[in-house]
Amino acid sequence: MTKQDYGRAFALWREAAAGPWRAYTQHSFVEQLGNGALPQTAYLHYLRQDYIFLFHFSRAWSLAAAKAATIDEMKAAIGTAHALTHVEMPLHVETCAAHGVSASELESTPEENENIAYTRFVLEAGYSGDFLDLMAALAPCVMGYGEIGLRLAGAHSPYSAWIETYAGKDYQRVCEQAGALIDNALNNRLGKDWQSSPRWPQLCKTFAAACSLEAAFWDMGLRAPQ
Amino acid sequence: MTKQDYGRAFALWREAAAGPWRAYTQHSFVEQLGNGALPQTAYLHYLRQDYIFLFHFSRAWSLAAAKAATIDEMKAAIGTAHALTHVEMPLHVETCAAHGVSASELESTPEENENIAYTRFVLEAGYSGDFLDLMAALAPCVMGYGEIGLRLAGAHSPYSAWIETYAGKDYQRVCEQAGALIDNALNNRLGKDWQSSPRWPQLCKTFAAACSLEAAFWDMGLRAPQ
Amino acid sequence: MTKQDYGRAFALWREAAAGPWRAYTQHSFVEQLGNGALPQTAYLHYLRQDYIFLFHFSRAWSLAAAKAATIDEMKAAIGTAHALTHVEMPLHVETCAAHGVSASELESTPEENENIAYTRFVLEAGYSGDFLDLMAALAPCVMGYGEIGLRLAGAHSPYSAWIETYAGKDYQRVCEQAGALIDNALNNRLGKDWQSSPRWPQLCKTFAAACSLEAAFWDMGLRAPQ
Amino acid sequence: MTKQDYGRAFALWREAAAGPWRAYTQHSFVEQLGNGALPQTAYLHYLRQDYIFLFHFSRAWSLAAAKAATIDEMKAAIGTAHALTHVEMPLHVETCAAHGVSASELESTPEENENIAYTRFVLEAGYSGDFLDLMAALAPCVMGYGEIGLRLAGAHSPYSAWIETYAGKDYQRVCEQAGALIDNALNNRLGKDWQSSPRWPQLCKTFAAACSLEAAFWDMGLRAPQ
Repeated sequence: MTKQDYGRAFALWREAAAGPWRAYTQHSFVEQLGNGALPQTAYLHYLRQDYIFLFHFSRAWSLAAAKAATIDEMKAAIGTAHALTHVEMPLHVETCAAHGVSASELESTPEENENIAYTRFVLEAGYSGDFLDLMAALAPCVMGYGEIGLRLAGAHSPYSAWIETYAGKDYQRVCEQAGALIDNALNNRLGKDWQSSPRWPQLCKTFAAACSLEAAFWDMGLRAPQ
Repeated sequence: MTKQDYGRAFALWREAAAGPWRAYTQHSFVEQLGNGALPQTAYLHYLRQDYIFLFHFSRAWSLAAAKAATIDEMKAAIGTAHALTHVEMPLHVETCAAHGVSASELESTPEENENIAYTRFVLEAGYSGDFLDLMAALAPCVMGYGEIGLRLAGAHSPYSAWIETYAGKDYQRVCEQAGALIDNALNNRLGKDWQSSPRWPQLCKTFAAACSLEAAFWDMGLRAPQ
Repeated sequence: MTKQDYGRAFALWREAAAGPWRAYTQHSFVEQLGNGALPQTAYLHYLRQDYIFLFHFSRAWSLAAAKAATIDEMKAAIGTAHALTHVEMPLHVETCAAHGVSASELESTPEENENIAYTRFVLEAGYSGDFLDLMAALAPCVMGYGEIGLRLAGAHSPYSAWIETYAGKDYQRVCEQAGALIDNALNNRLGKDWQSSPRWPQLCKTFAAACSLEAAFWDMGLRAPQ
Repeated sequence: MTKQDYGRAFALWREAAAGPWRAYTQHSFVEQLGNGALPQTAYLHYLRQDYIFLFHFSRAWSLAAAKAATIDEMKAAIGTAHALTHVEMPLHVETCAAHGVSASELESTPEENENIAYTRFVLEAGYSGDFLDLMAALAPCVMGYGEIGLRLAGAHSPYSAWIETYAGKDYQRVCEQAGALIDNALNNRLGKDWQSSPRWPQLCKTFAAACSLEAAFWDMGLRAPQ
């Protein structure tokens, strides 16, 4: 199985943004991760930018907690931010160290435009809008990595550790929980029939824009560092 | 006529918050404005706090512009903020000067807790929520003054200038425009049947809390300055 | 020892806001917690409002994480929000249950004006300002409870469990860490000589206003529930 | 004269970001505006994106008003937002109409990634930071157009109307006022010696990133529309 429905809203968002979703999740960078053709320099370029990305992504989940309407939403958002900052980011530092990139090099990496573009889009969607806008902007990252992991799982590639992280049960569960969080948030704010709300096409637009910005992030990965 | 429906949402909000609305719009401070029993010191206390209030209220309308979804919403919000800062606040300074309170005294007035309470509630509702949350928090101030003005219009009171400002056509038009802005914002975000959205009771709750904080603001006016 | 310096900035803030700090930390509600004179109804009133307070306080620490400039600031803020939502709030539910207040009663408690006033002031200070503004607004709560706990420690009171929680090593360490977080944040943003920055009197003003809003929160505790 | 110091901070920011500033203000798109080599399709592509840009730029100035510390800051920010939405945007609609792009085409233009990237960067800098962060992110746009206008003034080009708008006295005065607003905001928050504050290099970094995102915006202009 290569495609997982991580909740009802996600499946609909993905369908509505079919083009940008494909451009993002089947990007050449991703294919090369799977078949092993990706140059090590491109991978390291990506890893270094991804560290900065994780910092801003943790800020975005923290903002989601600030915008939560219920204790359950808040616990889910803070739990995610906590896992990102206390587990994922330290792991990322270790992974980079194993590839010869020191923590201080990581910290001093200049943030590139495509990295700025996606992270600030997510945060601004959250600040200017509400919890739902933030979720629509976050979802492509969370679930896209899950779907990519599942699709490439079992590949013989020097990047199989990366692949198996996202194909693994733990990460798949993160995606399912995010999907449930989003479905509940929609139900609680717009009612069961949220697809017929005028908010829905706007949320679909936010999701699609985020996919496009994710694809541009992979473009950056393939390019020489600035 | 003493009660005006400044739009569909406003009329429903007022109905749902009947108790807090009465506590606010028929507060003893208001009645004493109308029958002239209000001590001059209380009026000046109120005027000085109201100057600080207008500063934060202008910030709130500016935030509404930052959170607008359409150029029409943005123009309405910026137009209001512009009128507040470029017309109302300078007028307020003049009024206070006429009562012997200088501009520098006005600027140095310590902000009291009840003033902080309402203004920060409005701003925070906007920051954490979306445009609708902000409107529900702003509406009691905008429309409440309109209704109070209409009800007290023609009163023989040393405060009749204050009363006629809010009873006057210009201010009544501000209320009607705000009502239309709110109704359109609801239609565009939640659909024509916004009353059946789960957001609606939440918006009613925000409106009611704002009424209660407005009533506490009048309490402050009657109290000796801190 | 009854007074602890939880960092340089805190000690200076407390000194600059001596009056409001005393009004807050030596409030009659606090004294009655210590000598046991506090009616059980007042204590329960406070506990119920405090549950709502903790929800918004967790939002505020999450916002601090969103506004963090370094990974250390972010980890500290998220760590605090995580402890509040995953440990303190469940504990609070248990405490209330032991006093006969069920979880659903707790959830349905109407939020009172003084509760709104302080929590929204904190959040708005953070949204409109930066990390430092948020810290100045949060500090009175964090450190005030620490100082109250220390001062009342060992008291023979039906509320000694409450007192010992805040007098205890765990909570005292929370205060010290918050103090260090604040001092570092000041150093990193305004330089070692932050006391001579024009931001400093403004931060002192925010701290003092927060103390005054905390004192009003205790007033609420002594009053019959609305 | 081709280079204007629109205030002390601006001159220093420009100096510290020499490379990105040149990449932005002497971009091939700009040169082709001046020598008339720019294809009409590229110009129209730019105009259409710029309309969306102006919408978000107005939101950013509105946010600045929400984050203002004084009535003067607020009036300046609201005045700018008001001019943008009530004068510049309607003018933009007229200009586009004269080039055969209707208002409805303008409204339905899909926002491209580079447009998202700069506008959301500005807004997010403002939301997560304070008034100064927002100013550092806004300044490259405001002052860059002023400098470009001055440098290309008098050019024989089909785009001379565009050029003379920004070279003209009215726009130059906008730049000077923004420069004064920024210098005062720095003085009032960080003191006269703001260059030695740790905030300064961070503000320089924000300014430089914004220049780089502006250069990418011109790249977009030269590319075929998506």
